[in-house]
Amino acid sequence: MVQPYGDKQIKLFSLNSNRAIAEKIAEASGIPLGKMTTRQFSDGEIQVNIEESVRGVDVYIIQSTSYPVNNHLWELLIMVDACKRASAHSVTVVMPYFGYARQDRTAAPREPITAKLVANMLVKAGVDRVLSLDLHAVQVQGFFDIPVDNLFTVPLFAEHYMEKGLCGEDVVIVSPKNSGIKRARSLAEYLNSPIAIIDYAQDDADRSEGYIIGDVAGKTAILIDDILNTGRTFSEAARIVQEGGATEIYAVASHGLFAGTAAELLDQAPIKEVLVTDSVASKEQLPKAIAFITASELIADAIIRIHERRPVSPLFNFTHPNNEH
Amino acid sequence: MVQPYGDKQIKLFSLNSNRAIAEKIAEASGIPLGKMTTRQFSDGEIQVNIEESVRGVDVYIIQSTSYPVNNHLWELLIMVDACKRASAHSVTVVMPYFGYARQDRTAAPREPITAKLVANMLVKAGVDRVLSLDLHAVQVQGFFDIPVDNLFTVPLFAEHYMEKGLCGEDVVIVSPKNSGIKRARSLAEYLNSPIAIIDYAQDDADRSEGYIIGDVAGKTAILIDDILNTGRTFSEAARIVQEGGATEIYAVASHGLFAGTAAELLDQAPIKEVLVTDSVASKEQLPKAIAFITASELIADAIIRIHERRPVSPLFNFTHPNNEH
Amino acid sequence: MVQPYGDKQIKLFSLNSNRAIAEKIAEASGIPLGKMTTRQFSDGEIQVNIEESVRGVDVYIIQSTSYPVNNHLWELLIMVDACKRASAHSVTVVMPYFGYARQDRTAAPREPITAKLVANMLVKAGVDRVLSLDLHAVQVQGFFDIPVDNLFTVPLFAEHYMEKGLCGEDVVIVSPKNSGIKRARSLAEYLNSPIAIIDYAQDDADRSEGYIIGDVAGKTAILIDDILNTGRTFSEAARIVQEGGATEIYAVASHGLFAGTAAELLDQAPIKEVLVTDSVASKEQLPKAIAFITASELIADAIIRIHERRPVSPLFNFTHPNNEH
Amino acid sequence: MVQPYGDKQIKLFSLNSNRAIAEKIAEASGIPLGKMTTRQFSDGEIQVNIEESVRGVDVYIIQSTSYPVNNHLWELLIMVDACKRASAHSVTVVMPYFGYARQDRTAAPREPITAKLVANMLVKAGVDRVLSLDLHAVQVQGFFDIPVDNLFTVPLFAEHYMEKGLCGEDVVIVSPKNSGIKRARSLAEYLNSPIAIIDYAQDDADRSEGYIIGDVAGKTAILIDDILNTGRTFSEAARIVQEGGATEIYAVASHGLFAGTAAELLDQAPIKEVLVTDSVASKEQLPKAIAFITASELIADAIIRIHERRPVSPLFNFTHPNNEH
Amino acid sequence: MVQPYGDKQIKLFSLNSNRAIAEKIAEASGIPLGKMTTRQFSDGEIQVNIEESVRGVDVYIIQSTSYPVNNHLWELLIMVDACKRASAHSVTVVMPYFGYARQDRTAAPREPITAKLVANMLVKAGVDRVLSLDLHAVQVQGFFDIPVDNLFTVPLFAEHYMEKGLCGEDVVIVSPKNSGIKRARSLAEYLNSPIAIIDYAQDDADRSEGYIIGDVAGKTAILIDDILNTGRTFSEAARIVQEGGATEIYAVASHGLFAGTAAELLDQAPIKEVLVTDSVASKEQLPKAIAFITASELIADAIIRIHERRPVSPLFNFTHPNNEH
Amino acid sequence: MVQPYGDKQIKLFSLNSNRAIAEKIAEASGIPLGKMTTRQFSDGEIQVNIEESVRGVDVYIIQSTSYPVNNHLWELLIMVDACKRASAHSVTVVMPYFGYARQDRTAAPREPITAKLVANMLVKAGVDRVLSLDLHAVQVQGFFDIPVDNLFTVPLFAEHYMEKGLCGEDVVIVSPKNSGIKRARSLAEYLNSPIAIIDYAQDDADRSEGYIIGDVAGKTAILIDDILNTGRTFSEAARIVQEGGATEIYAVASHGLFAGTAAELLDQAPIKEVLVTDSVASKEQLPKAIAFITASELIADAIIRIHERRPVSPLFNFTHPNNEH
Repeated sequence: MVQPYGDKQIKLFSLNSNRAIAEKIAEASGIPLGKMTTRQFSDGEIQVNIEESVRGVDVYIIQSTSYPVNNHLWELLIMVDACKRASAHSVTVVMPYFGYARQDRTAAPREPITAKLVANMLVKAGVDRVLSLDLHAVQVQGFFDIPVDNLFTVPLFAEHYMEKGLCGEDVVIVSPKNSGIKRARSLAEYLNSPIAIIDYAQDDADRSEGYIIGDVAGKTAILIDDILNTGRTFSEAARIVQEGGATEIYAVASHGLFAGTAAELLDQAPIKEVLVTDSVASKEQLPKAIAFITASELIADAIIRIHERRPVSPLFNFTHPNNEH
Repeated sequence: MVQPYGDKQIKLFSLNSNRAIAEKIAEASGIPLGKMTTRQFSDGEIQVNIEESVRGVDVYIIQSTSYPVNNHLWELLIMVDACKRASAHSVTVVMPYFGYARQDRTAAPREPITAKLVANMLVKAGVDRVLSLDLHAVQVQGFFDIPVDNLFTVPLFAEHYMEKGLCGEDVVIVSPKNSGIKRARSLAEYLNSPIAIIDYAQDDADRSEGYIIGDVAGKTAILIDDILNTGRTFSEAARIVQEGGATEIYAVASHGLFAGTAAELLDQAPIKEVLVTDSVASKEQLPKAIAFITASELIADAIIRIHERRPVSPLFNFTHPNNEH
Repeated sequence: MVQPYGDKQIKLFSLNSNRAIAEKIAEASGIPLGKMTTRQFSDGEIQVNIEESVRGVDVYIIQSTSYPVNNHLWELLIMVDACKRASAHSVTVVMPYFGYARQDRTAAPREPITAKLVANMLVKAGVDRVLSLDLHAVQVQGFFDIPVDNLFTVPLFAEHYMEKGLCGEDVVIVSPKNSGIKRARSLAEYLNSPIAIIDYAQDDADRSEGYIIGDVAGKTAILIDDILNTGRTFSEAARIVQEGGATEIYAVASHGLFAGTAAELLDQAPIKEVLVTDSVASKEQLPKAIAFITASELIADAIIRIHERRPVSPLFNFTHPNNEH
Repeated sequence: MVQPYGDKQIKLFSLNSNRAIAEKIAEASGIPLGKMTTRQFSDGEIQVNIEESVRGVDVYIIQSTSYPVNNHLWELLIMVDACKRASAHSVTVVMPYFGYARQDRTAAPREPITAKLVANMLVKAGVDRVLSLDLHAVQVQGFFDIPVDNLFTVPLFAEHYMEKGLCGEDVVIVSPKNSGIKRARSLAEYLNSPIAIIDYAQDDADRSEGYIIGDVAGKTAILIDDILNTGRTFSEAARIVQEGGATEIYAVASHGLFAGTAAELLDQAPIKEVLVTDSVASKEQLPKAIAFITASELIADAIIRIHERRPVSPLFNFTHPNNEH
Repeated sequence: MVQPYGDKQIKLFSLNSNRAIAEKIAEASGIPLGKMTTRQFSDGEIQVNIEESVRGVDVYIIQSTSYPVNNHLWELLIMVDACKRASAHSVTVVMPYFGYARQDRTAAPREPITAKLVANMLVKAGVDRVLSLDLHAVQVQGFFDIPVDNLFTVPLFAEHYMEKGLCGEDVVIVSPKNSGIKRARSLAEYLNSPIAIIDYAQDDADRSEGYIIGDVAGKTAILIDDILNTGRTFSEAARIVQEGGATEIYAVASHGLFAGTAAELLDQAPIKEVLVTDSVASKEQLPKAIAFITASELIADAIIRIHERRPVSPLFNFTHPNNEH
Repeated sequence: MVQPYGDKQIKLFSLNSNRAIAEKIAEASGIPLGKMTTRQFSDGEIQVNIEESVRGVDVYIIQSTSYPVNNHLWELLIMVDACKRASAHSVTVVMPYFGYARQDRTAAPREPITAKLVANMLVKAGVDRVLSLDLHAVQVQGFFDIPVDNLFTVPLFAEHYMEKGLCGEDVVIVSPKNSGIKRARSLAEYLNSPIAIIDYAQDDADRSEGYIIGDVAGKTAILIDDILNTGRTFSEAARIVQEGGATEIYAVASHGLFAGTAAELLDQAPIKEVLVTDSVASKEQLPKAIAFITASELIADAIIRIHERRPVSPLFNFTHPNNEH
């Protein structure tokens, strides 16, 4: 068991989206969760009560903005407001899952950029710093002008697969859509494996024409994505990869939402193991082949480093991608 | 039927909380509702699609931030973001009901001021102007530095009761809690009636000890409040007023939420008519004695006046309260 | 005598509106007043000279923005600017009396919200925190996005009257106008007494028609208001309460301005004692029945708590009002 | 008489510091002054009432922030707040005299920069544009990020002296202190005359040791400064210039404050004429040799040009100073 | 020849980075370039002189922030400052090439996000809108909270290749690095061709181990990238594709910088045609196989549409990528 | 040799404009320069790499924004962005030379105020404090709302000349242009000498008509200016002063740029010694009579004082100029 953390100038609070990971972070860091309650009135309004002083304290608020994302975001914003008015010295939001991150550009005319809107709302509410885990697009860091420490999950996954002996030329890392190739390449670097991509000849919305670019025949395929939502991307990719001759198929995502019929789709797909972190406490049904890896120790370590003004970079045990110049 | 409004520089859009009032506002103003859709993904995230150009246009977005308030607020913020990025000339939010307005002060240590947070979020998202209806506290106008035109419902109510012959010394206007006296006084001015107050010797939360200050015996009592939520305030007040000898009891509120068992409570209370505006499209059960008065014409008139740079003040047919100096 | 306060990172400065309370705060806290001078040139311009270093220091500036309010506000803003440019670590303004607080809403068309304007000016000048005493409306806290610690005077008053044996059913707490009922209720909670209200059938400006709601006959009445300015509100209320049969009449206000003929009016009214705090150093004539209670110890305690990052909430020995939901 | 100005989208309002110039500007521009009142309560607080709609209008507010500067500044800020909240399309403040302009740098440790503070306050209150007249230091324009049109008085003065035949080598333009040489040079350019400077060997505060640099013997001297406050600078300079052999002495300043004993000092000094504009409506005694030149036509012309989006630069009939590179 | 554009409320100005495209835009739009000069002093400081009034005008400033990027950025910022202070109604910056766009994330610890810094600097200087051409990453739009209209070059390229008959299954669109696959997919949609990717097993910096994912044998390959800088990416990709059996190789990039030895490298590579737009006026040597396609008509059309408040979206003749949910 | 400075919470970094002075500041302060590199790509873009942690550290970045000013400014802004995103506790920019300071007003219509633009860019990028040396105009301090500590060079120069015995009535301090008189007066105060001014009857651009105001015959003249750029101002002034009968001529400037043919011009002028500080590391040819005085100790002292929250004012061993009121 971890020693209680000595410095009283830091307090952790957990909001309601993922108390399980918050408790693990508290345990791993030795910092107990602060006392607070939130309740939702009959009209849906949230009221936050902080039940211990935060005056002059560095507050870390743990909240994944997963389903129901709008409630979780408002709970977070209201808590930030309460902390600032109660004279917290600083407010860091710890977001293992950052909702709305996929709306990061105007893909069609007159679209909002909701990920930027979320960033703006957090900053305007009074957030001083963000600690995130595998943001959908790294450019989202630039949506903030406050420091954002974005932790990576790929090293955790690499360790998991290496322990299983899944590495080298007999393995192929597959991006299940053409926009996720950077993440596949990153895992491939660790495992010394080649990569392949599932491309869709038309809009991805029309899934019927997906095909593989690259070679998977006779190899163990690891499908990698950042967000596992409906399960369709993985289940379709698994089918294509199987047709392409892959011998065994694994799937890994940083954030497991498992919305709607995801568990069912994944159970029917030829996937041996579906690996996710505990960034999201999904209340949906989970696939039978589910495996979890906790991000709580990584996050706890980052919190302590931030608080002690030690560099977070050693946690990125990660040979970063080329500078594109 | 109203003429189509000629100026194409103005567009109205309705979000999802109260399409009924939006359609009435559109009809009353002669400005059709613009084409747009919003959908909510399986993970709860909202996507907004504006299906006609808003470039250079003065956009009015109609949304009551009633239950589920957090969804409705995000839908509103996202729509505002979309309009600004799509080069709208200005964005006015029309909020017949302004949620979270009651959290307007730190009543207890370390409480947030969520009404100010909402104001800040709207402004940061890009709102240029707010058109509201009977804000819970008039000070909320000061939470904004943009123009806020706050319309009053009391003149509508006064007209309603005068048509029924309810005015003069035989009527008493009752504030069902000690914080609502200004609204009771305002209605009393129109009806030339006295006022009374229900006071609670302890915390209002402890309802057992409510009592009347003022005289209701032998009079028709009109209970007035701004927000009718659980119905407890009115049902308790009606009981006290009845015990005090009132002959007939009416209740009126600007905003009818009717959360949970409100209809049941009100049906059991000695209230002859429960009058509300259509500011909220409650999906809850309604009391049998319900009566509606539409605010849509008032709002439509205000929108046209704002757009045509004519004063909105004539709509406040209202002898305003004393300057307190 | 209080020990000198050990921490040199804090400095108190007094501007010119109320040096008396500043000196008492200094004495109560053990922190001497810093050296500075301000002078006003022949053209009315104020020049501020800080005569000791404030670099890296937490500065507390004591200023009541009472008459002449515009001079006192500019003196305060200029001092804040000087402190920020001189590299103060933080600037807290301590405002025992917050002028312009009554202009907190647009009561009539095209009115400013001057209380919000004052808040914006203070923040833009560089204020990091406000310490106030019994703000006219608690919503004014929400006019700021910086922390505002608003101290309450009612507990001080309650103690004063309890020492005199004025409590229980023989006493009635009277709000001399219908907008001050919350303050009356708060004092009534402490004294376990009922409340009554003076209501005006028309605009308060027309005082001829005031009447009592509630029962005062045979009781000792305590009139309570936040700001005692011209004395008309109290003198009129005393007359009405006397006519209503009150046996003895006390009056209490947090802030005693005593403008113009206030002393004369109060001397003629049937008021046994006029109690105020020392938040304002009025240069006007005072009524003969004046009694003062100092807020300096309460403020000094708050300053030390803020500086030592201890909660201020224990100073609100105050069962706070009901949550209105 | 000027034609009434046709465009109704523009309104002029005069605050209380200098109604005389406001009325002349109104007459010269053909735009009547809008209806409004301001009153000051017994506690010194100012209340502004705008008595006609300003919705969608370009508002020009005329106010010289001369003595009592703090009142005039707050009156201005409050009026700006009222206009913004009342949906004015834009707010231009017309400041014939810009108070606090001399506090434009930290001359001593821990001094404020009050001129910048004033600029910040105006912008934060909602000002969109400033129209000023001969700012003390041209760098003050840079204290704003909004457009500032700064009109020059020197061409007016040059015309005045040329009509008197005062130009050429027989005239010398004298800066009465070493910081005003740019203004002297500018007038000298128009009049084709040499310049001289009064320098003080010590702090200017110690006036005993002033002496002339340059040649004044046998010439008509024109002393030029921007602000005539106490009269000491001019009266001392006149004495020195007289001792230096000047035959006749004129004095000219853009802004005549005439504080305290200024009139007396100037009456005793060997100055033939004291010329100022009507930028300040001084209530002090004026020197016997006073002459006024109105800036109202220049300002009216600038207002019309700004409103009609025509360049203001033709009003600077002025060969501007060298680019210092 | 195009008609002169009638509306005088719009003015175009060209800064110094790419006068050629500015002149073509002026001709295509019928709006002449406004008169202005900029000069650089011996100390490197830039001075901007706008030689005609911009008061009340919608100003469009054309500047590609290509080499020397720091000079071109400052010239742009200074011009924006000048326009705002000179009362321009709005300032749109037209950036055919947006420099520093590749520094859009913190790829390594303690890296800046310079693309966001540039966005912040532009907005702070006073820019109201950006018109860009094929931004490196679409997320850069979200770095701004002002409207950004980002035009696409792929439709221009598609038209070019279709005129040559290069489309269908005999053609393969190749992304020369794994981060550019979205752009390859977009062109492939137009040409109904498959795609392939050049992947690098290590850091892209180590080019020795690039290999193809996908099939190019017997096909005409079109290499596509957004920025052609040193030419190494294309020259290496061409070699790999040739080894993979491609019969003919084309290369296309939106922005041709041609830094250093780019021309030489490309001349040696087996590339039949190097196609770029005229977004950058490179002063470097160009490859022999160069072909230009002008973006000026597209940009001119966008400017007119923006000014006339007509939608820009018809210019995106582009079936946009899937919504990733 | 200086002791290593003990506090690890402070780090100095030198950018590329003047490493020589940075190294001297490091030595004088005992704080080693932090590890970082910047490189410029072939397209001119700058990349900054901070090679040690700055998390929680007070960072001081030393950069003179001299030629090439635009590159040096961007390098500075990018470094600031990197420090803020890397969680530096505070960022102070130390600018021995502040480029663009002369563009501090709109001298002609539609001119930018580039010095203000630079200030705005620095603040927006995240600078918390500026430490400068002899700003061109003291009003530039007011362009910032963050603390600016502006060190003076005149005391250093006074010491230099006093050591040579150059003081008293036999010496005359000459401002070589009419805008620099304050600096001449300041040096004169130290040396107890009179002053004189070179005035130009027309635009300074036309140098042919300069003449002396004041008396230099038979005296040693010290010409003083803040920026020595092309050398023309000094060389012309030296000629005029020589013609006026000065026996020996010295020239001193705070910042020596020596652009273009400055060395040549100065070598031909009758100037015995050209004294400058080492604020600028000019790569141009220097005049033969050059003498340097280092500002590094003054700056190092200021950095330590700022970091230790001790007043900087003792470094202004300087009887400051009169308050102009």
